[in-house]
Amino acid sequence: MEAHRFFVQIFYEDTDHSGVVYHANYLKYFERAREAVIGAPRLVRLWRDQGLGFAVYKATLDYQDGAEFGERLEIRSIWRRESDYRLIWTQEAWRPGATRAAVRAEIHLVCLDRDRHLRPIPPWEPAAEPMD
Amino acid sequence: MEAHRFFVQIFYEDTDHSGVVYHANYLKYFERAREAVIGAPRLVRLWRDQGLGFAVYKATLDYQDGAEFGERLEIRSIWRRESDYRLIWTQEAWRPGATRAAVRAEIHLVCLDRDRHLRPIPPWEPAAEPMD
Amino acid sequence: MEAHRFFVQIFYEDTDHSGVVYHANYLKYFERAREAVIGAPRLVRLWRDQGLGFAVYKATLDYQDGAEFGERLEIRSIWRRESDYRLIWTQEAWRPGATRAAVRAEIHLVCLDRDRHLRPIPPWEPAAEPMD
Amino acid sequence: MEAHRFFVQIFYEDTDHSGVVYHANYLKYFERAREAVIGAPRLVRLWRDQGLGFAVYKATLDYQDGAEFGERLEIRSIWRRESDYRLIWTQEAWRPGATRAAVRAEIHLVCLDRDRHLRPIPPWEPAAEPMD
Repeated sequence: MEAHRFFVQIFYEDTDHSGVVYHANYLKYFERAREAVIGAPRLVRLWRDQGLGFAVYKATLDYQDGAEFGERLEIRSIWRRESDYRLIWTQEAWRPGATRAAVRAEIHLVCLDRDRHLRPIPPWEPAAEPMD
Repeated sequence: MEAHRFFVQIFYEDTDHSGVVYHANYLKYFERAREAVIGAPRLVRLWRDQGLGFAVYKATLDYQDGAEFGERLEIRSIWRRESDYRLIWTQEAWRPGATRAAVRAEIHLVCLDRDRHLRPIPPWEPAAEPMD
Repeated sequence: MEAHRFFVQIFYEDTDHSGVVYHANYLKYFERAREAVIGAPRLVRLWRDQGLGFAVYKATLDYQDGAEFGERLEIRSIWRRESDYRLIWTQEAWRPGATRAAVRAEIHLVCLDRDRHLRPIPPWEPAAEPMD
Repeated sequence: MEAHRFFVQIFYEDTDHSGVVYHANYLKYFERAREAVIGAPRLVRLWRDQGLGFAVYKATLDYQDGAEFGERLEIRSIWRRESDYRLIWTQEAWRPGATRAAVRAEIHLVCLDRDRHLRPIPPWEPAAEPMD
């Protein structure tokens, strides 16, 4: 399976006073990439029509390098449906020209209803729909 | 009227790679201070029981100095009910030992229902209730 | 002068529990758009080679409407060099299909050196250089 | 060893449109708690005098529940020096009155110099110094 590619421009807001991207922000970038795969219109309809949303259940992050202001990060994502109740994503953030990922993550997603009860992952065809 | 005082500790997350607090974050600090004045339990009840929330309608910010990592900012807030539909807050962020405010703001608040229609500001006694 | 157009996809991270974009985040979107106009590589070189950066000196924001999850906002920016020391930006955030801007802002930028002393705005040709 | 306790008030800025705290924000809360343990003045001196800072090398997060607007979370932290080069923190976020943690994390910290080279963890006495 080929990884889905998504790009993130690093702005002032992303860095901290040490000069590199603040560590929590990579979780944002990985989520943006997942939303691009699943498709924002589908996520909007799921929430509005069925009251369903995805939630992070488990996240593991390995930090090897720090991205800097002005860079354009490449987020590579692959995913698998481990069960009716869990999607597992392997995601990486690559700095321009790098020979290894700056940050690697494994993210487990579940599907919750408005009362935050577990629900089966709805059927979907990843990336079948453009993001906007 | 004496200003309400609220304190904000500046963490890594607050700064950007220029070494000082990212400019948008002062809007967060001013909101935290307003929520301390109004009282979080009251805000929770307003939203849950009446579907009402406060929204920023207008904000003016003057930046004179930049706060740094590790500092504890003092947020000074005064407010007035300009009409049944608008609260006006004058808020300042002070660095430790400073002789003038680092950032000054005037923030206009309105009250909206869940459909985002304008509603009268509910009666309240500021700071009558502790925050937590 | 024609406005520069820049697009922002609204993700989970952008919204708050009232269902719309958190008010401070528009300052981020306006800054992203300004960085797209000025050019990230130029900003990186200015900081690295001359120790110069832009800072927000004054910001005025008018909120008329709230953007929602899944939308793609259009940021329209025009700017003028008011003096050797100040750039003034008029920026608007437009929801899809809207007939008026959701948020309008006027942002005053100055140029500071590493010691945060005021310096003349360096000469630049806006948008002459692609962002990445 | 008794856990260090630190409190986080949940504001509008912390939640997303699903009504609970945005998942990446717990990494911020855990960092705030670590900075409270280590002491902001010490962190400022380490950076200014020796060019040293702590960086997250690995993070594992388990999400069991979601905190809501207006709540005051308790962050419980314990830590150990695993080697001269690594501190391991076990941290939990507790909602008021909960019988189990909402989020649990294991965070590995390393110490980096300004060139982002690995350096031994400097000697320190946790919590020996008040935060502000």
